[in-house]
Amino acid sequence: MEQYFVNKKIDSNEFNLDDKEQFKHIITVLRHKIGDTIFLVDTENDLFKATLESIEDKNAIFNVEKSNLPTTELPVEVTIACSLSKKDKIEWITQKATELGANKIIFFNSRYSIMTWKDNVVEKKLDRLREIAKNAAQQSKRLIIPEVKFLKKFSQLNDLNVNVKLVAYEESAKHGETSALANALSNNQNGSIVGVFGPEGGFSPDEISELTQNGYQSIGLGPRILRAETAPMYLLSVISYKYELRMNEE
Amino acid sequence: MEQYFVNKKIDSNEFNLDDKEQFKHIITVLRHKIGDTIFLVDTENDLFKATLESIEDKNAIFNVEKSNLPTTELPVEVTIACSLSKKDKIEWITQKATELGANKIIFFNSRYSIMTWKDNVVEKKLDRLREIAKNAAQQSKRLIIPEVKFLKKFSQLNDLNVNVKLVAYEESAKHGETSALANALSNNQNGSIVGVFGPEGGFSPDEISELTQNGYQSIGLGPRILRAETAPMYLLSVISYKYELRMNEE
Repeated sequence: MEQYFVNKKIDSNEFNLDDKEQFKHIITVLRHKIGDTIFLVDTENDLFKATLESIEDKNAIFNVEKSNLPTTELPVEVTIACSLSKKDKIEWITQKATELGANKIIFFNSRYSIMTWKDNVVEKKLDRLREIAKNAAQQSKRLIIPEVKFLKKFSQLNDLNVNVKLVAYEESAKHGETSALANALSNNQNGSIVGVFGPEGGFSPDEISELTQNGYQSIGLGPRILRAETAPMYLLSVISYKYELRMNEE
Repeated sequence: MEQYFVNKKIDSNEFNLDDKEQFKHIITVLRHKIGDTIFLVDTENDLFKATLESIEDKNAIFNVEKSNLPTTELPVEVTIACSLSKKDKIEWITQKATELGANKIIFFNSRYSIMTWKDNVVEKKLDRLREIAKNAAQQSKRLIIPEVKFLKKFSQLNDLNVNVKLVAYEESAKHGETSALANALSNNQNGSIVGVFGPEGGFSPDEISELTQNGYQSIGLGPRILRAETAPMYLLSVISYKYELRMNEE
């Protein structure tokens, strides 16, 4: 069943969907009929089962009931921070990181990034990525839309207020580093986590030491060289496995 | 340093690279000079450090030495089997599954696949995917190129000779199934694993029961609805974490 984020708080058992875009999509395009049921997430991130009751010109009136489905949000807040890259890769990272449960998605400039964003395009670029995140959040049935941000200065990565700071470093993997990630996750109960990922060209040694001097642990993600867009998916998948799936204790 | 798969066994300390395509790429395009070093993987999946010794018309003579770098192959053989989907998704799955260590990549027809391959295009499609797998294997520094196959009949999935058979089933996730994957991996030392993934429309109940009657366990991959191309990446990432990364025992 489809799910939509509405930009109001739902505080009664009736909801009037009057957003032009959403009305058009749900009623005109998908042709939902009286009695059809969809899911709505309100501005408090609460999930509601919504049954179409009536359509009055451009208003769709739904009968809503708070859902008791289990949450689809990771028990830990995860931020994915990636060096700027080509448009399609950035959009892809945004979509996949959202599907895989990221709470915040950050792009930043780094020495070997193949591109940067001029000040005058940043908001336009972010708006596009936020739309992608919203759609991916609806499709994957998230309760929140990840925040998408851009850091102009690499050093802003040092100021992130997060419990566990990880940086994926190719050299770690090359030198057969195999325990840093497992140790970091095992020592973390429900603290927030940030994973920082470099460009195709990798981080400069200076950048790595700046990060490690600011509380980042460098981690390997296995022996294969992962592309810049693959590494964050690896980390998010592992975090989901670690915190959402567990062995049956019986 | 780049790596290339050569189609000969390297059995002396000299190797004559005379493959037209590779010669063109390495010597003409990348302009490697005498003394430059690259990596070569031979038909025995052995890795060699190769130093360019001389160039004689269309032959590049390398001095080769067996590398002692740690393996980049997963300790367990993993097959990823995905329902047919759009060209770009299939190509993307092939590239990412290769980066993440899959040993074999299979595409198959299923009830709700949005498309199928006519008999007369199968080989052409597979050749394209094999090229993608080869390039991804070189880029991620694999020692093998995953085999890419197509199963015309869904029932051929029952005949796969694999120790641990898993099928990702959305319904498992929806019903909060959280232990099947962890249990399956924890009970498996180094047996081969296959993960089967349905189309966007999901498997039909018949298909799921056919698989489970043939030794497949249905697993959930967390509470979020993953797209058809994201689920296999999740499984491969988790398998790498489980078998290649471990906590420091100290």
